[in-house]
Amino acid sequence: MAREDAVQKEKVAIIGSGNWGTAAARIISGNVTRHPNFHSEVKMWVFEEIIEDRALTEIINEQHENIKYLPGFKIPENVIADPDLLNTVRDATILVFVIPHQVLCDQLKGNIHPKAIGISLIKGCDTDETGIRPISLILKEALRIHICTLSGANIANEIAEGKFTETTIGYKIREEGELFKKLFETSYYRVGIINDVIGVEMCGALKNVIAIGAGIIDGLKMGNNTKAAIIRIGLLEMKKFIKMFYKNIKDETFFESCGMADVITSSYGGRNRKVAEAYVTTGKSFEQLEKELLGGQKLQGTLTAKEVCAMISRKGLENEFKLFIAIYRIAFEGLAPNKIFDAIVD
Amino acid sequence: MAREDAVQKEKVAIIGSGNWGTAAARIISGNVTRHPNFHSEVKMWVFEEIIEDRALTEIINEQHENIKYLPGFKIPENVIADPDLLNTVRDATILVFVIPHQVLCDQLKGNIHPKAIGISLIKGCDTDETGIRPISLILKEALRIHICTLSGANIANEIAEGKFTETTIGYKIREEGELFKKLFETSYYRVGIINDVIGVEMCGALKNVIAIGAGIIDGLKMGNNTKAAIIRIGLLEMKKFIKMFYKNIKDETFFESCGMADVITSSYGGRNRKVAEAYVTTGKSFEQLEKELLGGQKLQGTLTAKEVCAMISRKGLENEFKLFIAIYRIAFEGLAPNKIFDAIVD
Repeated sequence: MAREDAVQKEKVAIIGSGNWGTAAARIISGNVTRHPNFHSEVKMWVFEEIIEDRALTEIINEQHENIKYLPGFKIPENVIADPDLLNTVRDATILVFVIPHQVLCDQLKGNIHPKAIGISLIKGCDTDETGIRPISLILKEALRIHICTLSGANIANEIAEGKFTETTIGYKIREEGELFKKLFETSYYRVGIINDVIGVEMCGALKNVIAIGAGIIDGLKMGNNTKAAIIRIGLLEMKKFIKMFYKNIKDETFFESCGMADVITSSYGGRNRKVAEAYVTTGKSFEQLEKELLGGQKLQGTLTAKEVCAMISRKGLENEFKLFIAIYRIAFEGLAPNKIFDAIVD
Repeated sequence: MAREDAVQKEKVAIIGSGNWGTAAARIISGNVTRHPNFHSEVKMWVFEEIIEDRALTEIINEQHENIKYLPGFKIPENVIADPDLLNTVRDATILVFVIPHQVLCDQLKGNIHPKAIGISLIKGCDTDETGIRPISLILKEALRIHICTLSGANIANEIAEGKFTETTIGYKIREEGELFKKLFETSYYRVGIINDVIGVEMCGALKNVIAIGAGIIDGLKMGNNTKAAIIRIGLLEMKKFIKMFYKNIKDETFFESCGMADVITSSYGGRNRKVAEAYVTTGKSFEQLEKELLGGQKLQGTLTAKEVCAMISRKGLENEFKLFIAIYRIAFEGLAPNKIFDAIVD
């Protein structure tokens, strides 16, 4: 039976309410009122915080603004903030995951709608003893639901400002990809869909490694030719890596927003690039710079580089991923940044 | 018979001695002394100019520097500048074309070595009544010799400074591609070769159109998401256009330096981007800005956009190339720059 017949009105729950989750809520709230497929109320789970004596959920529900994570942008009134995770998801047939999943899965297991499907907007990656483990796979196995992925050259604040943006949704079942496209697409937020759940997600993780490489080049003040070369080599290694370590990856994925567009944005902006540049110019450690520049948040790029290189090394494939290995060795083994070129030339 | 047996020592003539030609001469002069395939003397045709009472050829041959077009960089002594075109090419079995070809072909016809092959480093494009005509094809037909092409994210001065750079050579006969790789590759100038003469050349022309689009976005101050989206859409239209209008184009070409790397560099630096940005922010015409910012030189990107869009329109394919058409209409038909988004959204 087609999903449209089984579920007459999809009810959406957004799990997470940070910068990106709140920007997503603004988009979703408009689309659920426009398309007949959806129930017009959207629930958003908020990790409760007290801000100047008021609960963040209360602020969102009364003032219709997330003053902490996306200040200055109205949240439509059909978005209902809820501090109770299980209450948020109880009737939801669509789960939009925007925050790291580790705690969630245990709580949600057995407590979600039998027809629920999910989409992961989560950035970053998780690991187990085999290496990087796609978050979409963890969610899928823990909750026994279908999971799509969404990733792209998507800075949350620029989306909130209505700047023209593209993104990519990876699906396994086309009908679900199309449903999520309806949920997310607007005149300025353009959604491409592709039959490649893991490819879309893994591009979002691996691009951070390339951004570290781009930052190293910026720190070395090597100019335009070199930066373009590093981005190109990085994109090729990313493609090779994902195709080698995961199954059924599509070549076209790398031409989507989640692929080369996100690699480009991350290599010219973004915090991985910035911290890597500072690493070269200041000589301070990545740990120190994370404290100074990111308030102690961990960089995704270095963690991912470490896991990626462990996976490469276990298979003895160092010669096929010279740039990734060089980036890892610069970040973790004290290789001099200007040795990056010796490392990648045959 | 393999070329190696037919031609024992390849003699190289470089036709052109501007910024790019001189940077190429520096690379080539080192490689001809390193590889036994080549005669160690390299001739370089110089369009004679008098600079402070001295001929430019004399300055190059005595002072070993092109003080006008690549000041500050030594030219090795095995490069001999010659103001006489036919004398330059007389014994040459390898012709490196670096300047626009229109005048050259008539003079060279019938006056080149019977075993000569050529490589075009010429940027830009030529047109006839059918639209854009690859310069490599014009050279090949006029001179009846094999022509390879070289293009990439290659700013001449950065190469002269020894900054790590990649480039792409398109060949039809692999042996010739490999010969040219020997002639050009150094530890910091890395050459990829691909069986796609026209694809390599056309990427170099079309990327200028995308750079105009990127400049428009910069002028509109649209941010990172938008710029990445425009570059991505531009690259897809470039690929589709080249594959549609020319034969035997390889998908892999677009992953080479001549493809996405050059698109990226041109969209973040380069004069097409710069002038297009100024067009949006100042409201002055492209003609006016060419005068003010380029000393009256013509922009490649606008000319190419015009020809590209004429070819698209003749086939009625406007809906397949929405970004290219929008860029053309902004540059030539007064479309407001911020309408670029309406134009590309379905």
